[in-house]
Amino acid sequence: MSLLIKNVRPWGKDSVDILIEDGFIARLEPNIQISNTPDSTIDAKNQLALPGLINAHAHLDKNLLGLPWHKNQVPGPRIRDFVDFERKFRQQNQISAETQSAKQIEASIKLGITHIRTHIDIDTEAGLKHFEGVMANKERYKHQMKLQTVAFPQSGMLIRPGTVELLEEAVKQGADCIGGLDPSIIDRDPVTHLDTIFDIADRHQVELDIHLHEPGELGAFSVELIIERCKTLSLQGKVTISHCFCLGQIDEGHLNSLIDGLLENQIAVMSLGSGTGNFPPLKKLYEAGVTLCSGTDGIRDTWGPHNSPDMLNRVQMLAYRSGFRKDEDIEMLLDIVTHSSAKVMKDADYGLSVGKQADLVILPGDTPAHAVVEQGNQRLVIKKGVIVADRAQLII
Amino acid sequence: MSLLIKNVRPWGKDSVDILIEDGFIARLEPNIQISNTPDSTIDAKNQLALPGLINAHAHLDKNLLGLPWHKNQVPGPRIRDFVDFERKFRQQNQISAETQSAKQIEASIKLGITHIRTHIDIDTEAGLKHFEGVMANKERYKHQMKLQTVAFPQSGMLIRPGTVELLEEAVKQGADCIGGLDPSIIDRDPVTHLDTIFDIADRHQVELDIHLHEPGELGAFSVELIIERCKTLSLQGKVTISHCFCLGQIDEGHLNSLIDGLLENQIAVMSLGSGTGNFPPLKKLYEAGVTLCSGTDGIRDTWGPHNSPDMLNRVQMLAYRSGFRKDEDIEMLLDIVTHSSAKVMKDADYGLSVGKQADLVILPGDTPAHAVVEQGNQRLVIKKGVIVADRAQLII
Repeated sequence: MSLLIKNVRPWGKDSVDILIEDGFIARLEPNIQISNTPDSTIDAKNQLALPGLINAHAHLDKNLLGLPWHKNQVPGPRIRDFVDFERKFRQQNQISAETQSAKQIEASIKLGITHIRTHIDIDTEAGLKHFEGVMANKERYKHQMKLQTVAFPQSGMLIRPGTVELLEEAVKQGADCIGGLDPSIIDRDPVTHLDTIFDIADRHQVELDIHLHEPGELGAFSVELIIERCKTLSLQGKVTISHCFCLGQIDEGHLNSLIDGLLENQIAVMSLGSGTGNFPPLKKLYEAGVTLCSGTDGIRDTWGPHNSPDMLNRVQMLAYRSGFRKDEDIEMLLDIVTHSSAKVMKDADYGLSVGKQADLVILPGDTPAHAVVEQGNQRLVIKKGVIVADRAQLII
Repeated sequence: MSLLIKNVRPWGKDSVDILIEDGFIARLEPNIQISNTPDSTIDAKNQLALPGLINAHAHLDKNLLGLPWHKNQVPGPRIRDFVDFERKFRQQNQISAETQSAKQIEASIKLGITHIRTHIDIDTEAGLKHFEGVMANKERYKHQMKLQTVAFPQSGMLIRPGTVELLEEAVKQGADCIGGLDPSIIDRDPVTHLDTIFDIADRHQVELDIHLHEPGELGAFSVELIIERCKTLSLQGKVTISHCFCLGQIDEGHLNSLIDGLLENQIAVMSLGSGTGNFPPLKKLYEAGVTLCSGTDGIRDTWGPHNSPDMLNRVQMLAYRSGFRKDEDIEMLLDIVTHSSAKVMKDADYGLSVGKQADLVILPGDTPAHAVVEQGNQRLVIKKGVIVADRAQLII
């Protein structure tokens, strides 16, 4: 199967043609002439092409998209209150992780997202129900979406006996990563929490992606414990710390020492900013060489009404919260949700160049920053060389 | 002319019918039966109705909508650098305030905005050119948009001799408000700056709307000077302070004393939040009874690529930055961009009740908060009882 895209501007640069053969980019140059007529040809009319957008932090199983509006009352001030409320709400209302995650996956495909890493709630009440629901969609949408799963102890792990065994079972059943959650604030024992999940990762050779909301010096201590374990077990390049707000809340000297530890152990940081609080200084981390990624977080769920499946919207929010106005700064954020996130998701075939898998989105805009602020749904989405969505319609 | 809207939920409440006669709401009750067939009937299918959205702080004259993307380089760290860059850019590129403001007005009509207060740059190089361009549109769109104009010394006033005279001339030519700008930081003489613009307001009986970016205690001092002059000249209810970031940057005791002064003199505060800094505590001010409004600020201009003409987007950003997740808090923000802003714009005929002018937007959503996060362009917009836009198409 071959697809020729005429007149397209990769990352806003000069117009070229892109020839895709068997799902990979075979040629990328101006005015391609080929002897055999390609199976299909598209004229992109000088629109932009970006590599497939990457949502590296989703909670696909828990959105309430398409359901009656959940009137948010905010269950309480602590994270635990939200967690307990949500678990009961989902159980009482029989929210199907399979149905709901399919809705977000389809919305994501339309928006040009080609990769998602999702955390899936695993607890002693739901067991592996949510995990199995999402895994069914991993198979169902395998031609449209590269989906990575994280076995995530949303309700706590040590504080709820039986959870460790369920997490390990999910890993045996194919979870790509073992998750963690606030080892001190939620689980009350940072050493045992981290030793437990690192042990699972080490024995099953899976990666780690740890939610860390812990603030300031407490969070920084958790980061240090993570760095120490990553080093001891030689899990370099296999650990992501999600949120990691503490990096935006400690003094410069301490931050610099943590950055050294992150770099030495190739630990990635996932940040989606924050509406109200300090968050990791993205430009400093990026320039230091820390591998960064971002995501949508939970969308339209019992935690709140904010967030959208659109990674361009996330880039704009990060730019707004970071005080970025310049095109080059916005392009840095776009690099985080594309190339840098592909490193986190270990996709060596990623990128808009010859030899790479043809995952891309074609959309209006004079420059990448222009596309970020325009957003909208005028997007043509190609996954593995096949058109999977066009102007908010799925083609699958 | 009569228009009957069937099955509509004002502010998300129970479904009613609304009968509009000669531009005003004649009846609002369930299942209206009338003997004479109305001129038109719409079935709103249980969608929401909100009163017309109000953008109480725009810069219509300076957007670059529809023009080639302006690659933002950020001219410098100070407000002055942005100001000087913009003035030269607009001159060199012959940006037409009339053409550009028409673009934003039309985009606003489609989004359900029925009222705009816009600041218009007046300086010794452009003279009244931008002002006249916007005034032409005030006339042109008078049936679709209630437009208030502020004669705004964007480049400074005292520091550029000749500006005061131009501002006064704009007021003579019909500007609704005299503007001001950072009396200390930009104009270097807060007393003379404020005395000058209050004198113009007093002599011509127009209102004041003063841009105040000044931080912390410096900004608070400017607020005090404004309060003193408002009281002395008996201009209660005729002053708005825009941005007024300082209210989010001073200690509680000082803030409370300023709130007392704002209340006593019925001074309104316009806030559109801030991407990175502290801004006025909206809930505290609202609950204290301060009249609040919000707006879009400049859109897609040389100041930066952020902001959108959509006031629902503004509400969502304010909610995100305020940490609001609850429906009731988001509805408070919606109240600010509707009823409260109408007070600022002195529209006594405003509101979704019998006897009020029929300015409303009908849109999808289970609740007002749901409509805020959905946004989108599925909006039917009615101004003075006439349908002026439907699903992103103007009907004028």
